[in-house]
Amino acid sequence: MTTITINEVGLRDGLQSLQRSMPTADKLRWIDAAYAAGIRHMEVASFVPARLLPQMADADAVVAHALTYPGLQVSVLAPNLRGAENALASGAHRIIAPISVSAAHSQANVRRSPQQMVEEFARMCDLRNSAGRPEVIMVAGMSTAFGCTRQGEVPLSDLCDLTRLVLEAGCDQVSLGDTTGYATPGQVAETVDAVRLIAGDTLHAAHFHDTRGLALVNSLVAVQHGIRELDASLAGLGGCPFAPGASGNTVTEDLVFMLHGSGFATGIDLPALIASRTVLETGLPGETLYGYIARAGLPTHAPLA
Amino acid sequence: MTTITINEVGLRDGLQSLQRSMPTADKLRWIDAAYAAGIRHMEVASFVPARLLPQMADADAVVAHALTYPGLQVSVLAPNLRGAENALASGAHRIIAPISVSAAHSQANVRRSPQQMVEEFARMCDLRNSAGRPEVIMVAGMSTAFGCTRQGEVPLSDLCDLTRLVLEAGCDQVSLGDTTGYATPGQVAETVDAVRLIAGDTLHAAHFHDTRGLALVNSLVAVQHGIRELDASLAGLGGCPFAPGASGNTVTEDLVFMLHGSGFATGIDLPALIASRTVLETGLPGETLYGYIARAGLPTHAPLA
Repeated sequence: MTTITINEVGLRDGLQSLQRSMPTADKLRWIDAAYAAGIRHMEVASFVPARLLPQMADADAVVAHALTYPGLQVSVLAPNLRGAENALASGAHRIIAPISVSAAHSQANVRRSPQQMVEEFARMCDLRNSAGRPEVIMVAGMSTAFGCTRQGEVPLSDLCDLTRLVLEAGCDQVSLGDTTGYATPGQVAETVDAVRLIAGDTLHAAHFHDTRGLALVNSLVAVQHGIRELDASLAGLGGCPFAPGASGNTVTEDLVFMLHGSGFATGIDLPALIASRTVLETGLPGETLYGYIARAGLPTHAPLA
Repeated sequence: MTTITINEVGLRDGLQSLQRSMPTADKLRWIDAAYAAGIRHMEVASFVPARLLPQMADADAVVAHALTYPGLQVSVLAPNLRGAENALASGAHRIIAPISVSAAHSQANVRRSPQQMVEEFARMCDLRNSAGRPEVIMVAGMSTAFGCTRQGEVPLSDLCDLTRLVLEAGCDQVSLGDTTGYATPGQVAETVDAVRLIAGDTLHAAHFHDTRGLALVNSLVAVQHGIRELDASLAGLGGCPFAPGASGNTVTEDLVFMLHGSGFATGIDLPALIASRTVLETGLPGETLYGYIARAGLPTHAPLA
């Protein structure tokens, strides 16, 4: 049975979209509960100035706690060289740089053009090398890969061109992000196949939003086309604050249910994962929790692993 | 480009699940709006005693109105011989008999065992023949084909056995119904392939519910395995009153968006279909309307046909 890696991004993408901050103690409990449910890949923080994203001010403490768990791959987001320095110092295993294909989104998100951001990413990769930390995985997170609320259509050729540049910059993994919830199944198939021709197995992960109800179907099509890691957020927490109208990460619980029901393994204990939603009820009282399977319950005869 | 037939079942499966009745005039306006949006297959009524389902008491008037539209295939549900008599008299083009694979659901829904229901279906087919109406299409709607809230697992072998019996009874088309929202993508693939070996192209349609968020992904997998007609309900109206906990038909608008975005044609004008939701707001004030695409809006560059 093929195993699909689930990267729980709620602690980063979910929490940074909220106006309020989750108390650090609750973040640590979330990590505990996710690990107990079998999650082995988590994106737990952004290394950005606390004045810009106070929700991520405790990034060092959150990463340190995650690192206490054996076998847990700890990822963080870093939008620039300074963030990468802090990320390297934190001991995180994997650093994701947000590289927008849409020039409009790139300016709004990181105040750089896509090309300028690739140059910064190259400096981040060089820093990793000069710091003697080759084991740290550098990920090019290709944002707005399927369209942009600001720019509209994002040509596949732009994505392909930028993918060539991030490969030259030294990236270890490419992740395709549907930042704005625009992706359709046919587009996912075409895009994954096209980027695969350029990046080979360096094309590793995908990140979908459920804005138009297609997060699960896009995830399955991505897997059918060779993607082996998917981002998702417990209870669908989050979205992108710089992509107006975009909302709702893929719901982790629903994704796991769908994958188990499609003949894929995840290593995740689904009832335990569903039960872990109580962490959000405690740490973010009143927050809207999304997800079908938590509400409807597992079928009595559902495949559980 | 492959065309997928969308069978709008909201007027039947949607409305019969509600406690209240939609006024006949509003039903007719719904048919008008659906036809104007390009819908060419509608399941518009059930021929059952009005004391059991008052929501369907105006079945004759609704069918008569639908029949005024050229090129519109008009389907009705009939659970027994008496219903089939009325359906034939109405002039409907296609008659669907609900045949539950789960014995428990069959008793609750039609007060017959699955085998007794097949015998009744055989009498319904004979009636069609003896009435000299060979052009009327007789459909075996295989309910609870993927699991049952009352019985739990429904063995695939039971579905295959029952499929052989309905073929012997004279059915023209087989439809697989996930009455309870239990189907998973892997199960859809396995089930469609298995029933195909028995029924060939007589296996024609599928009917999914979104109870666990998998209606769209199950629909795409069904299409990938050769299904060419899918049931759906405008705004996701409906469910099955005799399958506790089941809710939410596939949302027609979201299904059309997904299919157009997967390289399939439907002949439906999606903006017009979304606009037709106002018929429900008028005819069923206060009713919950589901659906992602109506809320999020089409991407600016979405494929529209």
